[in-house]
Amino acid sequence: MQSVTLNDTHAIAIGAGILGTGGGGSTYLNRLRLDNELRGGGKSLPIIRADDVPDDALVCAVGGMGAPTVSNEKLQEGREIMRAVRAMEAHLGQPMHAIIIGEIGGGNALGPLVAALQLGLPVVDGDSMGRAFPELQMDTFMIYGVAPSPFALADTHGNIAIFPRIGSAKQAEEFARSLTIEMGGSAALVMPVLSGADLKRTIIRDTLSLAKRIGESVLDCRARSIEPAETIAKLCKGRILFTGKITDVERRTVQGFARGQLKIAPFHNETPAAGIYPTPDPSPTGCRGESKVQPPPISMGGPRGVTGILQIDFQNENLVARLGDDVLCAVPDLITIVSLDDGEAIGTEALRYGLRVAVLGMPAPKELKTPEALAVVGPRAFGYDIDFCPLPGDLL
Amino acid sequence: MQSVTLNDTHAIAIGAGILGTGGGGSTYLNRLRLDNELRGGGKSLPIIRADDVPDDALVCAVGGMGAPTVSNEKLQEGREIMRAVRAMEAHLGQPMHAIIIGEIGGGNALGPLVAALQLGLPVVDGDSMGRAFPELQMDTFMIYGVAPSPFALADTHGNIAIFPRIGSAKQAEEFARSLTIEMGGSAALVMPVLSGADLKRTIIRDTLSLAKRIGESVLDCRARSIEPAETIAKLCKGRILFTGKITDVERRTVQGFARGQLKIAPFHNETPAAGIYPTPDPSPTGCRGESKVQPPPISMGGPRGVTGILQIDFQNENLVARLGDDVLCAVPDLITIVSLDDGEAIGTEALRYGLRVAVLGMPAPKELKTPEALAVVGPRAFGYDIDFCPLPGDLL
Repeated sequence: MQSVTLNDTHAIAIGAGILGTGGGGSTYLNRLRLDNELRGGGKSLPIIRADDVPDDALVCAVGGMGAPTVSNEKLQEGREIMRAVRAMEAHLGQPMHAIIIGEIGGGNALGPLVAALQLGLPVVDGDSMGRAFPELQMDTFMIYGVAPSPFALADTHGNIAIFPRIGSAKQAEEFARSLTIEMGGSAALVMPVLSGADLKRTIIRDTLSLAKRIGESVLDCRARSIEPAETIAKLCKGRILFTGKITDVERRTVQGFARGQLKIAPFHNETPAAGIYPTPDPSPTGCRGESKVQPPPISMGGPRGVTGILQIDFQNENLVARLGDDVLCAVPDLITIVSLDDGEAIGTEALRYGLRVAVLGMPAPKELKTPEALAVVGPRAFGYDIDFCPLPGDLL
Repeated sequence: MQSVTLNDTHAIAIGAGILGTGGGGSTYLNRLRLDNELRGGGKSLPIIRADDVPDDALVCAVGGMGAPTVSNEKLQEGREIMRAVRAMEAHLGQPMHAIIIGEIGGGNALGPLVAALQLGLPVVDGDSMGRAFPELQMDTFMIYGVAPSPFALADTHGNIAIFPRIGSAKQAEEFARSLTIEMGGSAALVMPVLSGADLKRTIIRDTLSLAKRIGESVLDCRARSIEPAETIAKLCKGRILFTGKITDVERRTVQGFARGQLKIAPFHNETPAAGIYPTPDPSPTGCRGESKVQPPPISMGGPRGVTGILQIDFQNENLVARLGDDVLCAVPDLITIVSLDDGEAIGTEALRYGLRVAVLGMPAPKELKTPEALAVVGPRAFGYDIDFCPLPGDLL
């Protein structure tokens, strides 16, 4: 992938939505902004490989911070990221070589492309999550030792904050979250600033290309009137965890996050997938059966022969999918809800009663499954007393 | 006043406490820090006049931000202001010429002296309040048009935030307050950064000298076993509003402020002072009798012949003193509570049942009584439906 043109934005938006695991913000508005920047004169945005960035060049990851429930209703002015990058360059007295996508999931995949066009800078193919995560410390740059400061925040009104020195990534998250709330619940973020050498060491490569490929497959399914869920699952080395109808959504916007729970009932007479987490049959990987908790018998009664309700917890992003006490999938593996008909990802801000959906479980990129990474992005980092049992394979 | 030495710190601390109107933080800890910096080798801190600062030199006002209830218990490490100034110099790529005291009230008069000694910079005799105020926009620099940005915050752990561009002083207050809360409820502040020319145009001159003079008078009274309240009132061109015993304190630390109400009962058979705000007899100044509210008859009963209870509202600083519905004094005029015996100011964080006190009302500096200033620091800016009726005279 050498550039992004107007022809690519639909596919990238669809793919980024699917990698967003419910978060990263809606792709709709940022795709409009991106199309707007690309329109006229056959403009294109150059995409470069991480390995082509000189070791001593300066790059920065960018994105939007805040709850997707907010950023969807309180529109950004459209140049927040650009202003934050310019302020950071002025602060450091050094120009950026390229823009890095902080998280490839959701609208946050597209915002950096918009900013890069405004700044006249190329974008590196890759990101630091291979998905979306709710908190700042949850990226491979900081997990693998890149300093969280300096970082910058910018709001819609032109206000800018720069944090030249912050003790830890978690501390940065706390300061930035509180300021984002004060900025109205959404803000543009430049974080971290890193060298080309550190970039090559820590980035998850080729995730922008992956997003585009996923989107192209979905568009192809749509053209051929095929339900895309199976195709997406295959392309992402994952599986369909569940199909059914959303029957309940409990969602609050608290402490700057969209938090809640979702329930999905299966269609008539379907048999739900088996969980990979606690089962009576221990497996050699140490995951199956490790838990003392036995999966409860799946209820066979209920309306229309419902055989079990899938429950998904989310904090901006989908975190854990369960059938009764049986965990089907958990962070950092990807849990994405797509519309059954057209494969469009449904963000946690857009969940509502009655939607007919497929729930996809996809293995995380390998960079998120090391012990250092799991300490930051594993189930326990989100407060779940669950050992991470990876879906087989790697997203990338 | 040309310097501050170890011999001056006690007097300055006492005077700053009295100018603090209950806020600005306790002087105790910052005096210990100041003494520590001055100790050994006859060190002294040079004090310069605002008019001696070159027009194109850069200076910055500094102080502590947060609730005095917090800063008294959660100790600062002691070099927070210094780090914030150094970070600001690095950000601007320009050194500071001198340190400016942001508010002369309370511990915030002394913190800048400590930082100046650590930085090797002189301090200007003056400040931007002539007292203490709870919010950042409430200073003569910003009231008279100095930009609120760039400003910097630093916490005890070495974390630093710089705001290179903020739309308004009120917006700066909101961002800084939320970050101060996240920093544990107290932080060091550098704000604003201004030129020598702007300094001369907007500073309230000679308030450090005034603090020292007040403190020296109090120490003199103590040496002669005289209750100092009358002397302080005279020196500050004010009056004793009330003497009595604290009978009730309602205080909460909310949204980063110490907020509450205080009740003081008069000693046996004393007659309280008459209010200057709403009275039945209209005065030519337009203040007396403007309110339709008639002062209620003062209750003559109660324990020990109590003739009326003084009530003071505070938000870090004392804002309004009332006897029934009769307003005796309101912001920006100074309301300070001192211990009857020794004239030591009692901060809003130190108020407690049973203290025997005098309540002093002192006229604000003239710079706080212009229409521009009253829009920011008058009673209505604090939510009171009261026209400001100044005590006669000016503090300075």
